[in-house]
Amino acid sequence: MVALSTISHYDLDMATPTATEPGARDTRQLEDLELAAWRGLLFAYRNLTAAIDERLEREHGLSLSSYEVLLVLSKEDDHAMRMGNLADLLLLSRSGLTRLVDRMVARGLIERHTCPVDRRGTYARLTEAGMAMFREAQPTNLAAIRELFVSRLDPADLEDLARAWERVDPGGGGPAEPGC
Amino acid sequence: MVALSTISHYDLDMATPTATEPGARDTRQLEDLELAAWRGLLFAYRNLTAAIDERLEREHGLSLSSYEVLLVLSKEDDHAMRMGNLADLLLLSRSGLTRLVDRMVARGLIERHTCPVDRRGTYARLTEAGMAMFREAQPTNLAAIRELFVSRLDPADLEDLARAWERVDPGGGGPAEPGC
Repeated sequence: MVALSTISHYDLDMATPTATEPGARDTRQLEDLELAAWRGLLFAYRNLTAAIDERLEREHGLSLSSYEVLLVLSKEDDHAMRMGNLADLLLLSRSGLTRLVDRMVARGLIERHTCPVDRRGTYARLTEAGMAMFREAQPTNLAAIRELFVSRLDPADLEDLARAWERVDPGGGGPAEPGC
Repeated sequence: MVALSTISHYDLDMATPTATEPGARDTRQLEDLELAAWRGLLFAYRNLTAAIDERLEREHGLSLSSYEVLLVLSKEDDHAMRMGNLADLLLLSRSGLTRLVDRMVARGLIERHTCPVDRRGTYARLTEAGMAMFREAQPTNLAAIRELFVSRLDPADLEDLARAWERVDPGGGGPAEPGC
């Protein structure tokens, strides 16, 4: 068995111990640079989404999660998506999405519907009021992303990030199954 | 007033429209590279933390949020932190942290305590069982971060990420006020 502590920093992208030695796990503490990259991801995500959520709530009474439901549905040809696909895409539990959709239905932003040619599941569909709310809130979301994220990075940084995501999470957030 | 649409991609890190024109917001759609960097952050964070949460739950019956409470408290000299500071550090609402701490107290992992020299607030403190659980779960967390994140990046990628976080979220996740 390979002694994990002898695997250098530079070997780490070549082969993970897990891949070469089933059951072997590399449990060393993270080095400073690894920790900075990892903790930075956690805190940047959390601070940025908390700030955007706060703006959407203040300006439109809309949580970031609700906004994301509107955004995803607005991209579908018929503004509808099966509930299970929506939960998968937003990485919400089925029960979590059900509660969120209940609140949005109560506000008239979306409606549940069953597809006439596919009765396997319930779909969530944007209402006209939901589409209007999306169009109203989208500039707030875009302005916040530009101000808090894009404007603080130069194009080389953006390229570095895009390349890193392609390595860490290839195809992450790829296209969902089309709605009904 | 500067026409926002004439601000080139390359000017974006020089001055934000908000900074130069109070009230003006740059609400253009994101360009492909901007979108890739931003959506990659959202999906990488969500996919990675979902995978780590799933492993911690499976191997230790511990959510990632609970693990983070153990981690933060374990770094304090006396293994204690004021509840409000803990909520701020983990970006949880006070009520969300209260519910989480209730569940962890019921399992004997942490205990509430009042600092003898500072009665302004309640502290959460690791129990011996909590410290033992942290030591048991930490290798799972470290191995997951190495396998799913660090091993997929080379040192140059890690440097790029660390630099980007410093620009986007300077001092993000910095040191908390020391516990009692």
